[in-house]
Amino acid sequence: MRIYDIILKKRNGFALTKDEINYFVHEYTKGNIPDYQAASLLMAIYFQTMNKEETANLTEAMMNSGDVLDLSRIHGIKVDKHSTGGVGDTTTLIVAPLVASCNVPVAKMSGRGLGHTGGTIDKLESIKGFHVELTNEQFIENVNQHKIAVIGQSANLAPADKKLYALRDVTATVDNLSLIASSIMSKKLAAGSNAIILDVKVGSGAFMKDLDSGIALAQEMVDIGHHMGRETVAILTSMEQPLGYAIGNSLEIEEAIQTLHGNGPEDLTELSTTIASYMVLLAKEAVDIDAARERVMKQLQSGEALNKFREFIEAQGGDPSVTIDASLLPKAAYTMEVLAPEDGFIQSIKTDDIGVAALVLGAGRENKDSQIDLAAGIIMKRKVGDHILKGEPYATLYTNKKDMMKKAQDIILNAISLTNVPVEKPKLIKAIVMKDHVTIM
Amino acid sequence: MRIYDIILKKRNGFALTKDEINYFVHEYTKGNIPDYQAASLLMAIYFQTMNKEETANLTEAMMNSGDVLDLSRIHGIKVDKHSTGGVGDTTTLIVAPLVASCNVPVAKMSGRGLGHTGGTIDKLESIKGFHVELTNEQFIENVNQHKIAVIGQSANLAPADKKLYALRDVTATVDNLSLIASSIMSKKLAAGSNAIILDVKVGSGAFMKDLDSGIALAQEMVDIGHHMGRETVAILTSMEQPLGYAIGNSLEIEEAIQTLHGNGPEDLTELSTTIASYMVLLAKEAVDIDAARERVMKQLQSGEALNKFREFIEAQGGDPSVTIDASLLPKAAYTMEVLAPEDGFIQSIKTDDIGVAALVLGAGRENKDSQIDLAAGIIMKRKVGDHILKGEPYATLYTNKKDMMKKAQDIILNAISLTNVPVEKPKLIKAIVMKDHVTIM
Repeated sequence: MRIYDIILKKRNGFALTKDEINYFVHEYTKGNIPDYQAASLLMAIYFQTMNKEETANLTEAMMNSGDVLDLSRIHGIKVDKHSTGGVGDTTTLIVAPLVASCNVPVAKMSGRGLGHTGGTIDKLESIKGFHVELTNEQFIENVNQHKIAVIGQSANLAPADKKLYALRDVTATVDNLSLIASSIMSKKLAAGSNAIILDVKVGSGAFMKDLDSGIALAQEMVDIGHHMGRETVAILTSMEQPLGYAIGNSLEIEEAIQTLHGNGPEDLTELSTTIASYMVLLAKEAVDIDAARERVMKQLQSGEALNKFREFIEAQGGDPSVTIDASLLPKAAYTMEVLAPEDGFIQSIKTDDIGVAALVLGAGRENKDSQIDLAAGIIMKRKVGDHILKGEPYATLYTNKKDMMKKAQDIILNAISLTNVPVEKPKLIKAIVMKDHVTIM
Repeated sequence: MRIYDIILKKRNGFALTKDEINYFVHEYTKGNIPDYQAASLLMAIYFQTMNKEETANLTEAMMNSGDVLDLSRIHGIKVDKHSTGGVGDTTTLIVAPLVASCNVPVAKMSGRGLGHTGGTIDKLESIKGFHVELTNEQFIENVNQHKIAVIGQSANLAPADKKLYALRDVTATVDNLSLIASSIMSKKLAAGSNAIILDVKVGSGAFMKDLDSGIALAQEMVDIGHHMGRETVAILTSMEQPLGYAIGNSLEIEEAIQTLHGNGPEDLTELSTTIASYMVLLAKEAVDIDAARERVMKQLQSGEALNKFREFIEAQGGDPSVTIDASLLPKAAYTMEVLAPEDGFIQSIKTDDIGVAALVLGAGRENKDSQIDLAAGIIMKRKVGDHILKGEPYATLYTNKKDMMKKAQDIILNAISLTNVPVEKPKLIKAIVMKDHVTIM
């Protein structure tokens, strides 16, 4: 087999066989195919696209390029959850204990990642003593005992995807549905769960800018999941503004705790309980989605979900009293309010820019070596459609870098548009994509 | 300027500016743009194509990436000739002295190259004493004095093209009209002539398999030439069988001399005089193509063209008596006739395969370090449409590698198809492409 022939075949519009895709992924990962040939193949794929079978085969090959977790010793149907990424997305911290309290095993492999804020593990590390350095043995035992555990992402998870993504990033071949879907799913599948719930963000703050392209991506991923024998459901959600109010690591932990107390922001609560309901359904802990939702709401309202969160924190060495005393979380030295320059209705919020402001304040990593400030971030005070008076706060900034506050303030002032006519509040959950049908909300 | 943005722009179907193309070619040649980004841009160009202006700008940028010959001190209008490459193409050896004898200055920079036989320089080196090691000064003086000189190709001629071609060759991005046309024309333009005649081969033995794609390529190149202020004409010619009868270095020299004597093969004579006529026309040594052809035929028939060839050989150190005594050329130790297995009309000849047989016998280079055998090659005995009787020779092999004759014989036997119904002889000259019109013959 020769990579030249594979490039030519795809360039000419033919579907690649499983053997050809395996050959490419395997040899590229080993360094036997040079970047320039991989780059030309990726651009040919961009133009000629891949069919469902090719996409599934690419996903499988990338999944098998590194470690694949074996969760078979965990009892029950393991359901994983993945979000395509947004600003202020605290759902994992709420959903995980919520479904664990419904008897759904949550064996979560999570990353730190680059972005506006840290990843789930960074956020959890805001809690004193909490750690994710578990052996595989301990991880599995924790899930069997508590129904929930979080472990750091293996460095050798889908290395083919890591290498290909880095190449796509510099060769303008990121935005192809098959390549995006296979990249996400290869890692999710390698993480070993039996079923997967995908939260696909759409809107100005997301990679997918409109609902149609979001649905198309969701369908690709749902199809891959089923092709690989994992029941997969995707929820399309709005990312036209930050989710909830908090953006930042310890700030989001605090908001998650409030939500588990039943006092969280409306949108965050709605999304978390919806995701949790589908997870309970896929884990066959409820007969239908209504029963699942009922069970989830009961666990939230009864405090069982919060209790599960405490149990989880304790099992991984953390101090559970943080759930009743937020002052135990890291606090920023400086705060500042960003004030509305005039009266009006919030017309739009450039979500990405709010994320950038949080990054500027220290909440995220710009590169692998950046130091994250767990206390830094933003608490938004208004949502799209809300009214505000001149001088009332748009947001409060939290940081240990005093000199960055002015810059973050300017970004936020530029990111928010006001209008003097009422604005309709955007719908949060836009569609559900399942194997054979799409439900638009 | 960032190469990423240039890739993205082309991928999205926009035309690149002259600055962007210059940036890409310049920085890639310097090694500041990695191969993988160049590869993705080339594949994007393959799919989105380039318009006339982009193609001309790419050509100019590649031309300017290395040495550009200054022929301004040569009197008269310098006309260059280029063939897209075929099997047994001896025309340069005939055309050059023919037009020089018509007062057209021929300042020929020529290569050795890889292929079935050597390049023009290899062929000329079959003549004892002939050499191309001239200083630029001597080269220009020779042309001014004799109207003809040949010099070896500068190693630094269009280095951007050399680097890009090597990349295209391994990334399935060779066959795009803009890229092919700019590659050829960048080198021709760097060679410094005022006008250019292109011999674009079409058919089984050529890169362009049919007339339409040949005309499209010709139009691209003619347009580039005019965009760069060089009058350019393309002649589309059949490469459905080897041109003339000889394939091999000294064998082609012998055939060229026969043709200059007026005793050459009909097709080789027709093509050489046609190319020469257009060169005379572009050099303004005739008022129209008919007058040009009349002058060319007169020089051929009067022996003036042959005299010019002798003068040229002598000026570059060679022994001109080769023009009256072919036994002075290198001779192969072994010869063998390949015989027709049955009676029939020659239906087709796989021209590329005949070239491969010549290569097997030692006439060409497989790689840069291969040693060429100037005496090796093939003399074909029949053309498409000719009748042959069983046991009559298809061809005679010449080689110093006795053990390769059987292999060459098998290739030739497989390359020639016979039929028992008469076959029409293919037309040699198929079309003429000029700036504003195409004439189909």
